[in-house]
Amino acid sequence: MRIVVVGGVAAGMSAASRARRHNPEAEVAVFERGGEISYGACGLPYVIGGDVPDLGDLIARTPERMRGQGIDVRVRHEVTGVDAGARTVTVLDREAGGTRTEPYDRLLIATGVNAVRPEWARTDLRGVHVLRDLADGRAILASLKGATCACIVGAGYIGLEMAEALHSRGLRVTVLEKAPEVAGRMLDRAYQQRVRAELERHGVEVRCGTSVEELVGENGHVRAVQTDHGPVPADLVIVAVGVKPNTALAEAAGARLGETGAIAVNTRQETSVDGVYAAGDNSESLHCVTGQKVHIPLGLTANRMGRVAGVNMAGGEARFPGIVGTAIFKTFDLGAARTGLTQTEAEGLGLDAVSVDVESTDHAGYYPTAAPIFVRLTGERGSGRLLGVQLVGQPASVKRVDVVAALLHQRGSVGDLFELDLAYAPPFSSVWDVLLVAADRLGREVAGG
Amino acid sequence: MRIVVVGGVAAGMSAASRARRHNPEAEVAVFERGGEISYGACGLPYVIGGDVPDLGDLIARTPERMRGQGIDVRVRHEVTGVDAGARTVTVLDREAGGTRTEPYDRLLIATGVNAVRPEWARTDLRGVHVLRDLADGRAILASLKGATCACIVGAGYIGLEMAEALHSRGLRVTVLEKAPEVAGRMLDRAYQQRVRAELERHGVEVRCGTSVEELVGENGHVRAVQTDHGPVPADLVIVAVGVKPNTALAEAAGARLGETGAIAVNTRQETSVDGVYAAGDNSESLHCVTGQKVHIPLGLTANRMGRVAGVNMAGGEARFPGIVGTAIFKTFDLGAARTGLTQTEAEGLGLDAVSVDVESTDHAGYYPTAAPIFVRLTGERGSGRLLGVQLVGQPASVKRVDVVAALLHQRGSVGDLFELDLAYAPPFSSVWDVLLVAADRLGREVAGG
Repeated sequence: MRIVVVGGVAAGMSAASRARRHNPEAEVAVFERGGEISYGACGLPYVIGGDVPDLGDLIARTPERMRGQGIDVRVRHEVTGVDAGARTVTVLDREAGGTRTEPYDRLLIATGVNAVRPEWARTDLRGVHVLRDLADGRAILASLKGATCACIVGAGYIGLEMAEALHSRGLRVTVLEKAPEVAGRMLDRAYQQRVRAELERHGVEVRCGTSVEELVGENGHVRAVQTDHGPVPADLVIVAVGVKPNTALAEAAGARLGETGAIAVNTRQETSVDGVYAAGDNSESLHCVTGQKVHIPLGLTANRMGRVAGVNMAGGEARFPGIVGTAIFKTFDLGAARTGLTQTEAEGLGLDAVSVDVESTDHAGYYPTAAPIFVRLTGERGSGRLLGVQLVGQPASVKRVDVVAALLHQRGSVGDLFELDLAYAPPFSSVWDVLLVAADRLGREVAGG
Repeated sequence: MRIVVVGGVAAGMSAASRARRHNPEAEVAVFERGGEISYGACGLPYVIGGDVPDLGDLIARTPERMRGQGIDVRVRHEVTGVDAGARTVTVLDREAGGTRTEPYDRLLIATGVNAVRPEWARTDLRGVHVLRDLADGRAILASLKGATCACIVGAGYIGLEMAEALHSRGLRVTVLEKAPEVAGRMLDRAYQQRVRAELERHGVEVRCGTSVEELVGENGHVRAVQTDHGPVPADLVIVAVGVKPNTALAEAAGARLGETGAIAVNTRQETSVDGVYAAGDNSESLHCVTGQKVHIPLGLTANRMGRVAGVNMAGGEARFPGIVGTAIFKTFDLGAARTGLTQTEAEGLGLDAVSVDVESTDHAGYYPTAAPIFVRLTGERGSGRLLGVQLVGQPASVKRVDVVAALLHQRGSVGDLFELDLAYAPPFSSVWDVLLVAADRLGREVAGG
C-alpha cells in the first residue's frame, strides 16, 4: 500500500501522520512544493508583527523528523500531473530539476488555496505581497526595512490581523476595502462597525467602499495605491482580497468540483475519482446548520479533514461530519467571533431568523477587569432553533462562542442555551453569563414575536 | 394574589422581580433579615482583597429601587414563623421590635445557607469570622486593621479566594484543612495539588490533614489557632468549613427535606407544602448527569431557581431542569473549573469511568501569552458517554469548561466533543483545542480500554 500526499502543511501532514499511525505497513510519501512543511500559517501575522520572534517558531515538524517516523517527505517537489487510471503522479524536483513518475494506491490532494491576485496586483514592483506561506512571510519581513506606510487591500481576517501587525512595527497603515464595511461576511453590519472602530481607535485609517485601480511605482518599488477615491501613499502593499482553492491537480485527475468551486468530497474525504482523496483548504465541507456544502478554509477544518483522509487512506474508517461555521480573530485589543449563521446569512437562506443584541460585561460588573462584551444571538422563529452567535469584546472573552458551537452541533434550541449550567465566579463572568442573557431575550422573540 | 418572599438576596430578589413582571397585578412583599438586599455575595473576597473598592459596589438593587418597581421590600425584618394552613407568616421587625402576622397566597422560602461554625469557633474572641453576607464582609474589613497573620480554616472555594484576598492585603496567610488536600470534592487529587502549588508559590502556607482544636485568645482577641499539629499564630481567623442550608422556616411550614439535608423541591420549585416554594442555596437541585438530587449552593443556580419560582408563584409555568455540576474559581494567577463528575465522584457512583489527562497550551504554543493548561476529561467505558471535565490553567482559559457543560446537558458523548467546530486562531487556542485533544485520547479509552 503506497499513499501519496500532495501538500505538506495542515491537511497533508495530518493525513500522513495519521495514515502511518493507523497502518504502520503503509508506505507514505509527501510532496511539498515549498521549502517547509507543517507550519502554522495562521501565525504569520504574529511573526510579522513581532509578537513571535521567528518564522521558524511556526514550524511544528521538520522533514527530518517525519522521515524518522517513516514518512518520506520531499520539499521543493511539485506534483504537476496525475494519471488516475494508471495511479501515478508526475513530480517535478524544483531544486535538482527534472520530473519523475511516482505510483500510488491512494492519493491525497492537499494543495490548499492560492491567494487571489487581481489584475492590478500582477506586478513586478517590489513591496507588493500576498500572505499565504512562509516564503510570503519572509518577503514581507524583508520589505519592512525602510517602509513607513503600508496599504492593506482587503479587510478580511488576514487584512485585519496584518493591520495590527504592521501598525505595531511602527508603520502608518491604511486598510482599503471594496465592501461597505470590514470583516466581510463574518459579522453583521453593527459588529463589523465595532471592529472598524477598534482599528480607527489605534490610528489605522480604514477606507471602505474603495476600489483599487492600480499601483504606482518608482524605481521598481511601489509608492502608492491608486484608488477610485484618489491615491494612497504606500511603500508596502499587502494584497489580502481572498483566496481560491487550488484545484488544478484535482481537475487534472478528473475530480468533480462543487458549486463553491472547491473540490467536492464525501464525509470520508473521497473525491469523485476512485483512490483520490482531497482535504484541507481546497475542499468543500458540510455546514451542519444549513445542510449545504461550503468552502470555508480554516486551520482546524483542514487538520480535521487531513486526519480523516489519513485514516481512510490507510484502510480505516473515519468520517468528517462537518462544521458549524465557527471563526474567531483578534485585532488590537478586540476579539471577534462567530458561529452558525449571522442574521444576514440566515435571511439570505430564506430562514425566518430573528436576532437580539445584548451588551454586558465579560466579568461581574464590579470586577476590576470587567469590560464590555457585545453579543448578537440569532434563532429561528417558531421552531426556536438556535442559528448562530456573534461576539465582540476583549479577546479572551469571545472564546465563549464555542458554547454555542457545541449546541449547534447538537441541533439545540435557544431554550437549551438558556438552561446551561455555565461557570460563574466574579473573575470569569456575570452570574447570568451574557450568552444566557441573550438566550433569555431571544427565547421570547422566537416564541412570540 | 399576595406573594411573600423570605430572603432578599439572589433567589429571593430574582423571584420577586420575575413574579412582578409576570403578573403586574400580584402584590409582592420581600422580608430580608439583614440590612441589604440583592448583593453579589460571591464578590465579597474581592472587596476584602481590595480589587473592588467598596462593599456597596456589590449591591445590584436597593429596597428603594425595588419599591419603585412595586415590590415592597422590608430589610431587617425576619420571618420567624409560618402557618401553612392559615397561609400566614410571623414577621419580626428587628429594628423597631415587635412582630406581626402577614398573609400570603404563595410563599417563597429563599433563606440561603448558614456558615457552619464548629464548636471551637463559637467564641466571643474578636478577629474570628465567617464569610456569608455583607455584614461579615464589613466585620472582616474592620479586623484587617493591625492584623499581620491570618489563618483560614477550610480550603474550599471561599477559603482559597480568601487566601488570595488576605495575602494581597499584606497578611501572612496560613490555610488549615482537615482533608488531605485543598479544593475539597471539586477536583481530583492531582488537580487539587496544582491548586495548592499555586498558593504555596505565592507564599501561602497550606497545612492539610490538620484539625483545629481550639482558638487561643489574649485580651479578648484571637492570637493563635491550636491544631492537632501545634499552634498557628493568627490575629485574624476566617472559618470557612462549609455551609448548611437554612431550612428552619421550611421545616416549620412542614416542608420535606431531601436526603442532602436541603429543602426538597420539584422542577417548579414547589416544596411538599401547598403554596410554599423554596429556591436558592437552601434547596436541592437535580444533577442531570447522575439523575440524583444534590445540594450544591452556587450563585447562578440560586438565581435560576428564584426566577422559576417567581414565574410559577405569579401563575406562570416555568421549570428548572437542573444542573450539571459546573463550578469555577480563581486563586492568585490560577483558574480551576470543573463540570459533570470527577473521576473520584464517578467511581463513587459505581460508574465504569475512565479519565485522560492532557497538558497543552491555552493559545498556539508559539504565541507569546501561551501558558500551560491541564485538562482531565472523564467518560464512561463502553457507552462513550461524557461524564465531566476538570481544568486548571490561566484564569481566562478555564472558562472553556462551559463547552463540556453544554454537551453534558445534551447527554453528549466523548465523540461528540471531539467533533466540535471550536474557534481557532493563535491568540485564542491551539489548532486542536485542548478539549479536542482530550476528547481524541479519551475516545480511544472509552471504546477500547
